[in-house]
Order: sequence, then structure tokens, then C-alpha cells
Amino acid sequence: MENVQNIRKKIEEAIELKNNAQIFDLIEGKHPADIADLLDGLDTDRIVYVIRLLPDELAADVIAELDEDIQEEILKRLSSQEISEIVEELETDEAADLISELPAEQKKEVITAIEDTEHAKDIVDLLRYDENTAGGLMGKELVKVNENWNVLHAVAEMRKQAENVERVHTIYVVDDENKLKGRLSLKRLLTTSTKTPIKEVYNDNIHFVHVTDPADEVARLMQKYNLFVLPVVDEMGHLVGQITLDDVVDYIQEEAEKDFQMAAGLTEEVEPDDSIRAMMRARLPWLIVALLGGFISVTVLNGFSSALNRYASLFFFTPLIAATAGNVGVQSSAIMVQALAKGHVEVSVLKRLLKEILLSLLNGIILAAILILVGKLFLDHIIPGFDMKMALTVAVSLVSVIIIASMVGTFVPLMLHKYGIDPAVATGPFITTSNDIFGLFIFFTIAKLILKF
Amino acid sequence: MENVQNIRKKIEEAIELKNNAQIFDLIEGKHPADIADLLDGLDTDRIVYVIRLLPDELAADVIAELDEDIQEEILKRLSSQEISEIVEELETDEAADLISELPAEQKKEVITAIEDTEHAKDIVDLLRYDENTAGGLMGKELVKVNENWNVLHAVAEMRKQAENVERVHTIYVVDDENKLKGRLSLKRLLTTSTKTPIKEVYNDNIHFVHVTDPADEVARLMQKYNLFVLPVVDEMGHLVGQITLDDVVDYIQEEAEKDFQMAAGLTEEVEPDDSIRAMMRARLPWLIVALLGGFISVTVLNGFSSALNRYASLFFFTPLIAATAGNVGVQSSAIMVQALAKGHVEVSVLKRLLKEILLSLLNGIILAAILILVGKLFLDHIIPGFDMKMALTVAVSLVSVIIIASMVGTFVPLMLHKYGIDPAVATGPFITTSNDIFGLFIFFTIAKLILKF
Repeated sequence: MENVQNIRKKIEEAIELKNNAQIFDLIEGKHPADIADLLDGLDTDRIVYVIRLLPDELAADVIAELDEDIQEEILKRLSSQEISEIVEELETDEAADLISELPAEQKKEVITAIEDTEHAKDIVDLLRYDENTAGGLMGKELVKVNENWNVLHAVAEMRKQAENVERVHTIYVVDDENKLKGRLSLKRLLTTSTKTPIKEVYNDNIHFVHVTDPADEVARLMQKYNLFVLPVVDEMGHLVGQITLDDVVDYIQEEAEKDFQMAAGLTEEVEPDDSIRAMMRARLPWLIVALLGGFISVTVLNGFSSALNRYASLFFFTPLIAATAGNVGVQSSAIMVQALAKGHVEVSVLKRLLKEILLSLLNGIILAAILILVGKLFLDHIIPGFDMKMALTVAVSLVSVIIIASMVGTFVPLMLHKYGIDPAVATGPFITTSNDIFGLFIFFTIAKLILKF
Repeated sequence: MENVQNIRKKIEEAIELKNNAQIFDLIEGKHPADIADLLDGLDTDRIVYVIRLLPDELAADVIAELDEDIQEEILKRLSSQEISEIVEELETDEAADLISELPAEQKKEVITAIEDTEHAKDIVDLLRYDENTAGGLMGKELVKVNENWNVLHAVAEMRKQAENVERVHTIYVVDDENKLKGRLSLKRLLTTSTKTPIKEVYNDNIHFVHVTDPADEVARLMQKYNLFVLPVVDEMGHLVGQITLDDVVDYIQEEAEKDFQMAAGLTEEVEPDDSIRAMMRARLPWLIVALLGGFISVTVLNGFSSALNRYASLFFFTPLIAATAGNVGVQSSAIMVQALAKGHVEVSVLKRLLKEILLSLLNGIILAAILILVGKLFLDHIIPGFDMKMALTVAVSLVSVIIIASMVGTFVPLMLHKYGIDPAVATGPFITTSNDIFGLFIFFTIAKLILKF
């Protein structure tokens, strides 16, 4: 950590002095991801200064490793010609990701300026797909052989193709029309005589996805079957690209982080180093929603103000009831959201709700017992007017509130999921706020029935 | 989904009738992960019945795909001899994971019964490492060549080794003492003449980890540098194993899910289909903590009961204040926890707290403005005794509470992290409950100062 900051400072100084040799010394031999880390803390003009110094290939790799918002700022400062030189060096999927951030006009300029027309065509193809589909995750680089070749011919072709591919994972086998037939494992390649025809040695047991399949289906398949690569075919079964596990790891982590953020009431990803403006954008919306929910709570409590005369101390219990309702609701919804994300929801809604009721009843009774015990031992000495009848009122309310909150927490994500909305929305302030309101309403209604105010 | 349930039902019926041919028909040609899915819903005796029918290799692969708690139940019902036959078929890392679940006595029995002594030795070696280290994630299967060989000799050796390895990712290069020197890329292998000496063609630029390095460091490295495999060396630099990205994906997802669970107030992973007992174990602890926090809130509010005479409606605002404090605290702590998990925390604590104060001030002022507006437009018509002075009191409290809650949310995870405790503990009910209490205390203290009750 320390070290990164020190080197970054030295780079900054070297930029000020335009001491390019010094800059090269500081980043020499470093991995593009490490160079990106060093540049991350600098202001955009300085990052662009360093990027322009680097050879095209390294510049491209460093840009690909930078955060998306920094990439955007850098692209704004580079000419279309410069961008196309960088894009030329990137893998097709990274190139497409970068170009997709440009304004429509500049997109065309950059693509036209790419010298390798094959590369340009591949990128244009990738730009068609939504980023949350298999097409959006795939790259065009892959190694494939024709089923009608023999191994000797195939190996010669593969050598050629391998030159353009960063890493060879699997050798795909296609027919004359480029339809995916199977794969030739590298292990098989190492252990097979060169004269065998491909048709006889390839493995036709192969997982694949369609370009339009959603990204989470891709992630699920790759994880379930421990796949390192997954070929992608179009509607006709033609082999059009390949998804590698490293891209999916990033996707899986981002999705998991999104769920966490939503549960924490953040509307977008933020890091502590982000600007105050980005922080406000992420944090204020849910706080406003919760505040509006708070107004409803105020109105609910005001509706029961007749309790103030004889049972004012009921109002001391509102945070306890609201917090329990919120906690139970979040627990239930979180379990549901995770199960939905994994596709693990098989049992019927009714059965699930019945189970939640039983569970809540048990949890509620234990919490109610603690409440009555603590009430008897401590609270009735401290709080004026707190008697057994009141303790019982709070206890009965607590059990009811827990049951209702757990049902809301289970039901809402299921409904959201059914209507195509990300159920994770329901794990954060939304479920807490609505359960606060329900909880308080139930509490005072039950109190009114028992205590008759 | 439907389909899985249908087939599972048919398997159940076939088991009842001991119609083994029918069982085979139902699972024929399916991937072990899919067979595991089918068995997952059955009771343990039935799962064991099917497992015993399967050929050893398939049985092993299916067991490896089952959940850990189901694995444990199955192992209890199998003899040591049966387990050793299954272990014989597993990759070393999976075998070690399985054996580590057995009681100490049976561990020895199983290992002694393994016929392939090399395999047994590898497993014993792996059992030494903590599961959250590189040693715990690695497998012993890999392909390596000696730097002193030529490519021809190397290829012959590789063919032999490849027979025992599920998938060949990288060919490691070692010296005569088995010390890791570098790697021979498969691409290079495809494009190099067979007569070249290994020494001249290998790449010495290789990432590696030590057996004792923590798992999260492994995950960070593999993600940052887009690695599909990572070699593991011992203290002397000897090549002892290899970690593949698919194992790390599972680790990354489990970690992300753990954070989500903690944020949601769950003490362990649970799924909707888990038993009521498991559900209670996961959910009750934090509910009890929050309930105890609730008692403190009751006492705090009781301490300000002198406000009941003239300013009773202050008590209507307690859920609003508590919820805001909780939400802000969770937001701040979640941002901190994610940054800590990624190792992205470079700036000093003081600077970070100052930033949180500024941010909270801005957010607080906006929320306070909404509060005064809503108060003026609606609340003062509805709530008796709610005037501008009271609105101002609530508004000032709201701003103060937001600032304090965000500081607590930022500071607590940092402290926990410093003392080696998982900071994610602080994102859930803990931070909500403590901020509820702080928030209410601040609210009524400020109210007392302004309204003088």
C-alpha cells in the first residue's frame, strides 16, 4: 500500500518535470494491472500524459485495466485516431467494451480508422449485443478446426490461429458451415497421433450458450460444470465466440456486490475514494424513501395518540418493535433473494409461507419470553406504569409483528422476481421501512385491543 | 425446474421398487452436477442407495458435487472401504476436502485403504493446510517439465503426466530440485519446434503464491491478473501444487455471500429449503442482540419521559430518527467493508471521517429541508402541538444523527479490521441497533436543549 502511494507520488513529480525517462523507470517491468493501480489516483490529464508515452500495446492493456469512469474521462481527451490505435491492440471483447462508451459519432470514426478490417468487423459484431447477455460477454478470439481435416492439417492451422489468441483453452471443432460440432481437448492433442482424422477424435459432448442467453445463465453454467471456457453460437448454431471464466468471475463478483449494495441501501457502486457527488447519488435516494416512510410512521403513531394518557410508555417500545420487524424482514428477504439468484426455488409459495410462519412463531416465542423476563426483572422497576398486562401486550405484538414481517420479507422478493424486477431491491431500506410501518401499526392495534384505550 | 422435480419423483419410485434399471435409465448420460441436483431433494438413505449403484468414478463425481452437509450424512453411512474407493477416483483437492470431514479415526482407515500410494501421499500432504490458505485451495495434479530436458523429451513426459490430469492449463518448468522456474505456454508449445531445449523457450515471468498465503490474497491475484491457474510453492520454492480459477470462483462467491448474509443479520448460510432448526440457528442470534439493543432504547426513551407532558409528539418521530440513523450507518459501513475486502483503503482514517462528515452534512441538510417542508405542509395540520420550533428540533437532530451514524459506520469496520475481526459483522443488525440507540439519545438530548423540558 505505502509503496503504491510513494511510486505514484514520484510519477506525479516526474510528470511535472516532464522527465519521461524517470516515468519509464518507475513503471518498467510492471504488469498492466499494476500500472493501472498506480495511475488510478492521478488526475485525468496526468494519466493521459503517461498513456501517450507508452507503446500502443501496453497503453491498451493499461486502459483496459482502469475503472470504467476513468476510461471514459481518458477517451474524451484522446483523438479518434489515438483511440483506434489502442483498440487495434485489444482483444475484441475489451475493444468492444471500450468503444461502446464513446458517443455514436466517434464510434464510427474509431472503427473506420482500425487498420485490421477483420478485427474491426469482429468488434462491430460484438457491439450489437446487450452487455448482460452471452454475446456481451464473449470475445471473437478462439481456435477452431474443421471436422474434415486430419490432425496434421489441423495442427498447422491451429499454430496460425494461436498467434492471434492470448491463451488457448479449447480447440473447437466445426463443420464446413462453421456450425459447432464439439471440441478437441488439449490433453487429447498431446496424446494423439498426428495422422488421425479430426472427425474420429473430437468430443461432441460440449456445453454451449446462445448469443442472446442472459449473463447470469452463463455464470450459472460455467460454475455448475466447472467450465473455463464456453462457446457461443448464433440462432443457426454457428460458432460466433467464446466466453472465458475470468470475464465471468468479474461478472459474478459484480452481481454479488450489487446485492450487497442494495441490501445496504446504496443505489450504485461507490468506493470510499469516490467524489462527494457520486456518494450522494448512491446514498441519498434510499434515505429519502426511508424518510418518507418515516412520515407515515409519524402519522400512524399520531393516530394512536389516545394511548398517551394512560399508556404513554408504549411509545418507548416503538424502536424495539420497528427494529425487530425490520431485522426479521431483511433476514427473510435476503434468504429468498439468494435462493432466487441461484435458481434454487422449487417449493410452492404457500408451503414456503407456512414454513416462515412456523419459524417466526418459534423465534417470536423465544424473543417474547426474553421480553417478559427482562420486563419482570428490570423494566417494571424503571418504567412507571409498566405492568404485566403491558409486558404481555408488547410480547403478543412482538410475535405478531415477527410473523407478518417474515411473510412480507418472503413474499415481496417472490413477487418482484415474478414481474422481472431484481428482488434484491427488497432487501434494503424498502423492506425495513415498510416493515417499520406495518410493525408499528400492528403493535398499537394489538395494544388498543388488549389495553382498551 | 418442473422437470427436475418430476425426474426426482420417478427416481424415488424406482428406489422404492428397487428397480435399478429404471434408475439408470433416468440418470443416463447426465452430468454429475445434474445427477447431484436430482439427488439433492431425496432423503439420505435413498441418496446412498443410488450412490452405491453407480460405478466408482461417477459416484465420486456426484458426491463431490453435493452440498457439504449432505456429503457428511452420506459418509456416515458408507464404510471406510467404500469411501476409499470413491476417494481413489477424486482429484486430490476434492479427495482432501471429503476426507477432512471424517472423524480422525476413520480418516486413517480411509487413507490406509487407498491403493494408489502416490495419491494417498498427495492427499495426506493436502490435509495439512488450513482451508482458507493457498495450500487448502490447491490440488496436486499438474504437468511439469525439467528445464534441462529438450522439447522432445518434455512432450513425451507431458503425455504421460497429462493422463492423470483432468485439464492441462499450463506446463510448469522446474529445476532438478523441483524448484519453480517458470512456465511453458500451451500456445508456445503449439508453435515451437520439438528440438528446442526447454531452458531456451520457457517464460520466467510467472505469478505464484506460497502454501501459507491466505485464500483472499489468492483470489485477489487471480482476478487482478486474469489468471486461470496459479502455482503454489513451499517455503523453499519447491512446486507443490496448483490452484485453478474454478475453485477460486466458488471461494469468491462464498465470501461475497457471507458479506451479504452478515449485512442481512444471518449468522450462517441458509437456504429456504433448510430445516427450521438450521433457520433458527442462523436467524435467532442477531434478533436477540437487536432485542437487547431495543431494551436500551426503551430505557433511553424512558429517561426523557419528562417530554411527555408538553412535547409528547416528539415520540412519534422516534421510528423516523432511528430508521435514518440505521440506514446511514449501514450505508457507511457497507462502503467501508467492500473497500476493505478489496484492499482499496489507502487514505488516512481522519481524512475519511472528514469526508463522511461533509457528505452527511449535505445529505442531512437535504433531508432536513424535506422534513421542514413536509412538516409545514402536512404534519402541523395533523399533529397537535407540532409547530415550527418542533420541526426545527427534529431537523437539527436529523442532521446531527446522520453525521454521528455515518462516523460510527465508517469507524467501526476500520477498527474491527485493524483487530483482525471480519468488518462485515458491522454491516448488519449490530450497526443498526447501536445507531438506533445513539440516534434516539442525540435526538432527545437536542430536543431537551432546544425545547427545554
